[in-house]
Parts: sequence; C-alpha cells; structure tokens
Amino acid sequence: MILMSFENTAPAVPAAPVTVLGLGAMGRALAGAFLDAGHPTTVWNRSPGKGGELAGRGAVPAATPEEAVRASGLVVVCVVDDAAARAVLEPLAAALRGRVLVNLTSDTPERSRATAAWAAAHSVPYLDGSVMVPTPVVGSPDALLFHSGSREAFERHESTLRALGGRTVFIGEDPGLAALYDLALLDFFYGGMAALVHAFALVTADGVKAADIVPHLGTIVEILPPIAAHTAAAVDARSYPGGEANLAMMAAGVGHVLRAARTRGLDVGQLEAISAVVERAVARGHGGHDWSSTVEAVRDSP
Amino acid sequence: MILMSFENTAPAVPAAPVTVLGLGAMGRALAGAFLDAGHPTTVWNRSPGKGGELAGRGAVPAATPEEAVRASGLVVVCVVDDAAARAVLEPLAAALRGRVLVNLTSDTPERSRATAAWAAAHSVPYLDGSVMVPTPVVGSPDALLFHSGSREAFERHESTLRALGGRTVFIGEDPGLAALYDLALLDFFYGGMAALVHAFALVTADGVKAADIVPHLGTIVEILPPIAAHTAAAVDARSYPGGEANLAMMAAGVGHVLRAARTRGLDVGQLEAISAVVERAVARGHGGHDWSSTVEAVRDSP
Repeated sequence: MILMSFENTAPAVPAAPVTVLGLGAMGRALAGAFLDAGHPTTVWNRSPGKGGELAGRGAVPAATPEEAVRASGLVVVCVVDDAAARAVLEPLAAALRGRVLVNLTSDTPERSRATAAWAAAHSVPYLDGSVMVPTPVVGSPDALLFHSGSREAFERHESTLRALGGRTVFIGEDPGLAALYDLALLDFFYGGMAALVHAFALVTADGVKAADIVPHLGTIVEILPPIAAHTAAAVDARSYPGGEANLAMMAAGVGHVLRAARTRGLDVGQLEAISAVVERAVARGHGGHDWSSTVEAVRDSP
Repeated sequence: MILMSFENTAPAVPAAPVTVLGLGAMGRALAGAFLDAGHPTTVWNRSPGKGGELAGRGAVPAATPEEAVRASGLVVVCVVDDAAARAVLEPLAAALRGRVLVNLTSDTPERSRATAAWAAAHSVPYLDGSVMVPTPVVGSPDALLFHSGSREAFERHESTLRALGGRTVFIGEDPGLAALYDLALLDFFYGGMAALVHAFALVTADGVKAADIVPHLGTIVEILPPIAAHTAAAVDARSYPGGEANLAMMAAGVGHVLRAARTRGLDVGQLEAISAVVERAVARGHGGHDWSSTVEAVRDSP
C-alpha cells in the first residue's frame, strides 16, 4: 500500500468549512483528512456514535443532517451505495440548494448520472467522485481520487478536495466518469489479483512455495505499463499490430496454462473464459495480430 | 519491453563451444546471443535454410544433427514442443552421452520431467529451461531464464548459459520447475492482460479513450509487488489475514464491475469466473479474510 507521511502545513487563508455525511470507515477517513488539513469539519451519521473519535479531533457533530448541510458550502456524502445516498439527500434538497455536493459513494456510472440529474433538478452543483485508495492512504500525497461532473464546482473547491489526496484529478463533465474509471481500475485489479492467486495455486500444487516465484513476478509487472500504453493506442485506433508474439501463439500459451491447471485439479474458469475470448478473436481473423485485438471479442459477447 | 544494449566483452578464456538444435525464431535468437558472447556455435535445423544469417555471423551449420551434437559439450535444443524435441533427440542418444543437454523448448512440467527421465536413462546430464522474454531481449542483461534439473550441469556451464540473459537463474533439481515457473508467470500475465483489455472495453463503451485511463493504471501496478509478497506469505501459511478490505466487500466490488460490463454488452466470462471463486471462498467462511483466501476456492474446483 501507498503509505507515506503527510506534512500538514498551516493554510495561508482560513480553510473552508466542510460537511461530511456518512461516517463509515471511508467517511471517517475523509473527515479526518479534512481535519488534518485544518478545515472546520461538521459530521453526521444516520446511526449515532460514529463521530466520537472525530469530535475529539475537533469535528463538530451535527444533530440533524440539515444542520450538518447548513454548516458548510461544501457537502461530502459517502455512504454504502447511491440508493442510501439518495435516501439521505432527498429530504435535504432545499438545504443543499446552491451548495456544492460531492458524492464519494461508490456505485455505477448509471446511478451517478441519475444522482447528478436529481441534483441538477434541485439546483445543487454536483461532483461525483471515487476514492481509489484504502482508508489509511486517504489524505496522503499519493492518494488517488477521481472527480467528475461540474468543472466549476471542482475548480472552486479544488484546494479543499485536495486535502483528501495529492492525486486528486478532475476527469470530465460526464458525472458517470469517476465511477467508470473506478470500475475500470477495479476490473484490472481484480483480474490481476485472481490471476496472481491462481499462479500461486499452480506452483504450490507441485510443492513450490508461492513466495519463491514472487521475486520473478517483477519481470511481468515492469512490462505492464509500456504494454498498457501500446495496447490502449491499438484499442483506440481499432488497428492491431502483428508481429512475433501474435494471438495464435498466445492462444497456444493460454492452452498450456489451462491444461496444467486442469491436471492439478484447480479451478480453470478464468482461464477458460480468457481462452474463449482469444479463440473468438482468432476466429474473427486476429490470429496474426497482438493481444490488443482481443478487445473485439470482448465487445462481441456471445 | 526490456530492450537494453548488451556490452560484448572479450572473454578472458576461450569461450566454450555450443550447439543449438532448432532454428525457429527463438533458436536463432539463442544462437545469436552465443555468437555475440564469442562462443563457437554450431547450428542445425530439421528443415534447411534457417541458418544462413547465423552462418554470416560466424555460426557453423552442421549437415546432420549428430555432427552438430558432437561439435560441443553443451547442446541446446529449442523446438516447437517436447514431442518435437524427443523426435530430434531420441536418435541422438549415443552422441549426447556425457554432454550436457539443455532443453529450452516450452512445454508442461510433466513433459519436461519425462524428457529428463529419458535423458537420465541415456546418461545425458540434463537441464530444462524456460526463456521468459521475447526474442529481441534474449542475450540482454535483463533477460530472465529459468533452469531446473542437474545443478552440477548448470554450475559447469553457468557462464555460457548466462550469455542468453543476465537474469539466468537455477531454481531447483526438479526438472519440471522451469516449465512450472514459466506457466505460473504466464498465468499471471494472461490474466492481467485479459483484465487490462476488458477495462479498456469498459471505458471505451462510454466514449472514453483507453489511453485516458493508462496514466492511472500505475496506481494499481505499483501496489502489485507488495500485495504479491503479502498474498504469497498468506498462501504459504494457509493463514489468511482479515481487515477492512475483506472478501465480502470485494465480492460486492466484483459484482459492480460485472454488472457494469453486462450492461454494456461486454463479455463477462472472466468476471463471472472470478466472482464464482470469490463467492465460493465466502461460502467456505473466508468473507472476513482478504483476497489471499481465494486460493482455497481455486484449489477446491467444483
């Protein structure tokens, strides 16, 4: 994990007040980061008793969500999903009018867009964000957060929002983008983690320690960024390079891994799914192209 | 790719002669690396006409495989698979006796062990290796090659074998290990690549360029090595840590990505397979543990 110390510097101007609605693990981390950066921070949670530690650090617990909203020009909501967010927010429409609402609740791009439409209908400037790091990293210079929606709202509150992470980026005015980027990074992460654990299952089946292959995984990890850039360019151009490491060869490679896993009695669902996509891409004429061409088979779901 | 220049230094002692059987793309790269390092190199290929460029660089093309074998104390074979390797090697058993045979053909651990047993039965000291880099990287300081089998044979020829890559490692006396490590690294690589392309399909479905998310993938890539080390330790101990980012939470996360992909009409085979493994691990009581516990569900194939 990206754990670096955060140098708290005194702000030159009084820091803007912030309200945080929702004090689950992530909500508490967000409020703590605002407090660390010197922002007067008002907090509220549906069930009481979550704000004690934050109050000890200077947060002001509000008795009602409306009181919490009226305390600040910037209101952050972070609850379990967008349905829960809407349940909290809908009774607050009048109080929110003209304040900036930042929804850091994780949900789908579709639901983010729906919440943005609700906010627009109530004249609430709206940002939808995704926190891409675990709670202990929130507030650090390396913490990545995506924001999408009202560019004007982002620019007005950027210095405050940056208290949540040094890598705070505005990615566009479609309010679904932050959730979309979140899902895309998770897609890559979960696939990589599942493949990692599968590789460990493969070697441990033959009596090798998982730890023994760890020093060699770096060879794969270090080529991923250049391959990602190269693959993205091909996907965007829908023009797929050929070469020696082509898909027909890789189809055989996936088959080797699949058979070795099956021989060892391991789950092969992920490998079978990858193999099916690769074979479909080859059947579509991409056998001489590189791996990037599999995107055509991913889009052409059977 | 790992493309660095290779400083060719004159050897202090005459470089040992080497024979390369099989002049496909990889065989030619291997012979080229031996030539670059100053080794007298004899080459042979089943179908003629593959050694011309190598002969121009000083390689000696042999008229028969037996003549090729008798030219060197170290014989490297690299053909399409172990069945092809056996077809080449079996008539050469007498000529190979006492020479070191290094099989760099890609195949399964099982077939590597079978070829090792054949070599042992004919008194041929045997190494089974895997070349983990594409052909342009062979011979560079960064090229990774695994060797397994006879430790004595490896140590005797280590300086010669190192001409093929600066990261040449002996991983153990089980001759199946090099193929096993190869499959494990490919398992991780293919899973990661498939997830990468899927992530690109997800964002491009909403009109975002694949290239736009590339700068943010580093946040995932940079946490993989520490997560791999931590996960391997848990897998080896079969003791799975808990914590905030537990499997029950991640099961929900996988579900979010899966639904978003399905909504966009994308192939969801890989995500469904990952989800099934995670759900099975949760059902086995690992909901409070971290992702490493999914190895139990990978081993417990339905």
